[in-house]
Amino acid sequence: MIRVSVLYPNSSGSTFDMDYYLTKHMPMVGARLKPALKAMTVDNGISGAQPGTDAANRVITTLSFDSMETFQSAFIPHAAEIQGDIPRFTNIVPTVQISEVKL
Amino acid sequence: MIRVSVLYPNSSGSTFDMDYYLTKHMPMVGARLKPALKAMTVDNGISGAQPGTDAANRVITTLSFDSMETFQSAFIPHAAEIQGDIPRFTNIVPTVQISEVKL
Repeated sequence: MIRVSVLYPNSSGSTFDMDYYLTKHMPMVGARLKPALKAMTVDNGISGAQPGTDAANRVITTLSFDSMETFQSAFIPHAAEIQGDIPRFTNIVPTVQISEVKL
Repeated sequence: MIRVSVLYPNSSGSTFDMDYYLTKHMPMVGARLKPALKAMTVDNGISGAQPGTDAANRVITTLSFDSMETFQSAFIPHAAEIQGDIPRFTNIVPTVQISEVKL
């Protein structure tokens, strides 16, 4: 199993429309990547380890797939549409990483 | 529901003993934080979005709790033991953030 993490780093001047993200972007992503997409999570950053400090990332999203191959086969045909939607909800350039699920 | 994300940024010279982490550290964390801890994940970074590039984080771990209060009540009594164990498996100073689970 692999997990694709999409991290939206926090910075002054950054914007993020969580309502659009949850009601438009993520449902579109889910529709395009099914049935390869096994699970998704969206976390909205509240704080750092200490209350009152800034979260390093405004949003952390994960998408789980059985393998790198099933992810790539599902994602590549829809990459332009999915990535092209990003400016509609944020001015942040996300950091993407692919990980092996250990636990 | 909140999720505590523990990100171990990748850098040249960084070390991370995944075997110790999975067989000693995370079981200890699980034992100390139960029953408040509702779920945990451990992702081992493979690459960035493009194959062959470095993952931004060597490891991303998440711990889920019903609320900030149940997390703090469970964590604070064991913070010194849990944080003191970190140098046994890595020389990375992790970035911790607390998020509201949206999905």
